[in-house]
Amino acid sequence: MKFIAEIDVMPHKALLDPQGKAVSGSMKNLNLPEIGNVRIGKHISLEVEADSKATAEAKVDEACKKLLANPIMEYYEYKISEA
Amino acid sequence: MKFIAEIDVMPHKALLDPQGKAVSGSMKNLNLPEIGNVRIGKHISLEVEADSKATAEAKVDEACKKLLANPIMEYYEYKISEA
Repeated sequence: MKFIAEIDVMPHKALLDPQGKAVSGSMKNLNLPEIGNVRIGKHISLEVEADSKATAEAKVDEACKKLLANPIMEYYEYKISEA
Repeated sequence: MKFIAEIDVMPHKALLDPQGKAVSGSMKNLNLPEIGNVRIGKHISLEVEADSKATAEAKVDEACKKLLANPIMEYYEYKISEA
């Protein structure tokens, strides 16, 4: 079966996110002072071929740990659905 | 009221995504050949101060159009929830 995983990789909340801070600052110049506390990370979508949802989850988790996220600086969340 | 927006900015499906292609290739070297069709974009979370959810949506949409997404190369999706 084919599954689709939607993964968010975000900087840890305790860490400074310079890209997000820069965007927060720019919002003021764009006449959008209501927007703040911006944090920017990665969104990854991918397809997994697996027998069951549990196997697909294990594969996605392995991919996140090995390649997609740097656990020192980032955390990840994912949702898996059948394609 | 304070709202939290979770925004995904992804490369258009019709466009080549070189970063995603590179990651797809790397999955084979990591013993994860089940994973493919990787596409990589940005995930942005931010806070909006607004009177209603509709106003918050308008602000977030404006921010996406003006700064967060490049409509030539990317599309965006967002979800807004009350903080």
